[in-house]
Amino acid sequence: MDNFTYFNPTRIHFGQGQIAQLTNEIPSDARILITYGGGSIKKNGVLEQVHAALAGRHFLEFGGIEANPHFETLMKAVALVKAEGIDFILAVGGGSVIDGSKFIAAAARYQGDAWEILQTYGSKVTEALPLGTVLTLAATGSEMNAGAVVTRAETQDKLFFHSVHVQPRFSILDPVTTFSLPPRQIANGVVDAFVHTLEQYSTYPVNAKVQDRIAEGLLRTLIEEGPKALANPQDYDVRANLMWSATMALNGTLSTGVPTDWATHMIGHELTGLYGLDHAQTLAIVQTAVWKYKLAAKQAKLAQYAERVFDLRDGSDEQKALAAIEQTEAFFAAMGNPPRLSAYGLGEEVIEPVAAKLTAHGHVALGEHTDITPEDVKAILRLAL
Amino acid sequence: MDNFTYFNPTRIHFGQGQIAQLTNEIPSDARILITYGGGSIKKNGVLEQVHAALAGRHFLEFGGIEANPHFETLMKAVALVKAEGIDFILAVGGGSVIDGSKFIAAAARYQGDAWEILQTYGSKVTEALPLGTVLTLAATGSEMNAGAVVTRAETQDKLFFHSVHVQPRFSILDPVTTFSLPPRQIANGVVDAFVHTLEQYSTYPVNAKVQDRIAEGLLRTLIEEGPKALANPQDYDVRANLMWSATMALNGTLSTGVPTDWATHMIGHELTGLYGLDHAQTLAIVQTAVWKYKLAAKQAKLAQYAERVFDLRDGSDEQKALAAIEQTEAFFAAMGNPPRLSAYGLGEEVIEPVAAKLTAHGHVALGEHTDITPEDVKAILRLAL
Repeated sequence: MDNFTYFNPTRIHFGQGQIAQLTNEIPSDARILITYGGGSIKKNGVLEQVHAALAGRHFLEFGGIEANPHFETLMKAVALVKAEGIDFILAVGGGSVIDGSKFIAAAARYQGDAWEILQTYGSKVTEALPLGTVLTLAATGSEMNAGAVVTRAETQDKLFFHSVHVQPRFSILDPVTTFSLPPRQIANGVVDAFVHTLEQYSTYPVNAKVQDRIAEGLLRTLIEEGPKALANPQDYDVRANLMWSATMALNGTLSTGVPTDWATHMIGHELTGLYGLDHAQTLAIVQTAVWKYKLAAKQAKLAQYAERVFDLRDGSDEQKALAAIEQTEAFFAAMGNPPRLSAYGLGEEVIEPVAAKLTAHGHVALGEHTDITPEDVKAILRLAL
Repeated sequence: MDNFTYFNPTRIHFGQGQIAQLTNEIPSDARILITYGGGSIKKNGVLEQVHAALAGRHFLEFGGIEANPHFETLMKAVALVKAEGIDFILAVGGGSVIDGSKFIAAAARYQGDAWEILQTYGSKVTEALPLGTVLTLAATGSEMNAGAVVTRAETQDKLFFHSVHVQPRFSILDPVTTFSLPPRQIANGVVDAFVHTLEQYSTYPVNAKVQDRIAEGLLRTLIEEGPKALANPQDYDVRANLMWSATMALNGTLSTGVPTDWATHMIGHELTGLYGLDHAQTLAIVQTAVWKYKLAAKQAKLAQYAERVFDLRDGSDEQKALAAIEQTEAFFAAMGNPPRLSAYGLGEEVIEPVAAKLTAHGHVALGEHTDITPEDVKAILRLAL
């Protein structure tokens, strides 16, 4: 096991009715900005619950934060924060709203051009407005970590930053808020959480038994519950299991003491930035292609994955690994995210632009061995045609 | 899944050489009290590493905190803290030293008779000195939670308290510090962590899939690594897996959204208080007796435990549950803690005194259904003769 530091101070309130906890979690004299996305929270009763919990408080609202939140949109919120003396951000939505709100919280206190926050991966962030969240979609894990991804629409750049200063003070996770989501968002969330887990698992063995078992437990849970969530949208326990899986998948627990990959995410970000694919679609396209390209290096963990997640116990390690790849692709397809570029009307024309963007962003040594160059990415994408 | 709140702000530094992190974790102007136990840290190089990290700092030392730390001993440390203006406690040791140090930290700031802290389960604690820990034994999980158990030698009372104010600010977990431990302490630690996991698992199903998978992963890891730790005391990975298992077993992760039992611990505490048995011995004696007494109520989870932890897939749920009980008893015995009172020279004479102590302490409705009375405890102990 590798050395690690683990620290996660976000307070989680999980379960039906927990939005009422906002009353206790936000200081009574706070000047609050409620941030949200396309407005579904006005239809499904979530915003009403938020208003009830904040009755008598000072708050403003900023809606319209899009999927893959745009720098341009978020800077409008930053201007509002400054003009209105906002001192608390309450993000109500999924990962895009929370990621965007982390950026707002940091940019509102940043001296200089806020785009630098992303160009320097958050290393220059020294303070941020306090942030709390009401999560309405199980997917990204942003509700319990210090990372965020923001897209500059103008230049098609999708970049990430980390800072302890934007870690949510609290997050409220009520599975009922996800009942009214469209099936595509549910399915995407399952694939996102699944690949978050794989990025921290499908590398090479370091004898980290607890971390492996937890990852395998999350993968099995997502495989079991994902299809049920699509079939029975009102099943509370299924939604609760998905929500807690997605949070646990990226709250720092899985990455303790183990190598991590993240090549799939880095390549996928460029596909979204350039071609507007859903984040989950890009993950489904790239994940198994990375495995095929790096089969020898990843074979031991993929064989373990085959045994413990899919109960595939026969054959050599290579045979088990290949069988697990097949099962994984079938799962992605069943969750509405087929694992090929062609399924989304894309082909060889994406290869050069994606490699060029990775180079421009300085992402030229990806994966747990930092040995995946833009040339390797081209080969990986050819395996995903 | 049940509603829950999860919050764990302890920063963990895990791995070889991490004691050096003390330099950054403790304020440079702190007046530190280093607390420890029998003095093994002077022989195995741990105290030397602590001194090196704190070179030039102001610190005093208080040793001699015993297993099942005594109120009487701890109050001497409280007097020292007050006399010397100590403002930071650094506990260096296992669960007893850390639990005792939590009590010292709270008692040093408590107005009134400090014994009340335990009589009121910590509910009257409103502040405490900041506390950090260097863990030297994988067992209790105290390094990453807000609970502590203290024994009043004079009256044979072993009582617990919880308070957010005594949650360690940081804990340093270096598996190398456990290389020199006697086998009995290693074995006891494994049994302690194992039963902590069971207390939060072997109840009734609430469809909390993530929590169940994590618990099962910890149980499998402890079963796999426990015997190896005894056979190969210098195997770093084995000690690392045990250490992280024990911390994860009682840091709040397992109890999210599920019922918990804790009857075994409550009964076990009285056995230690009255007869001086090791904590782990009492857990091994009581755990399977509780299961046998409550077999119908616990059968579903015990059958799941049989399948997923011991790969016992044949037979009825009752048959699987009984087979899992047998396997559990064999594991306890293999870890040097046979699961019967008779193995420790005790018999029927303990039954009435234990039931009387539980009654005196107000613990008259134990277990996940709060339906285990002192009369039931007598029956349970008869199953453990």
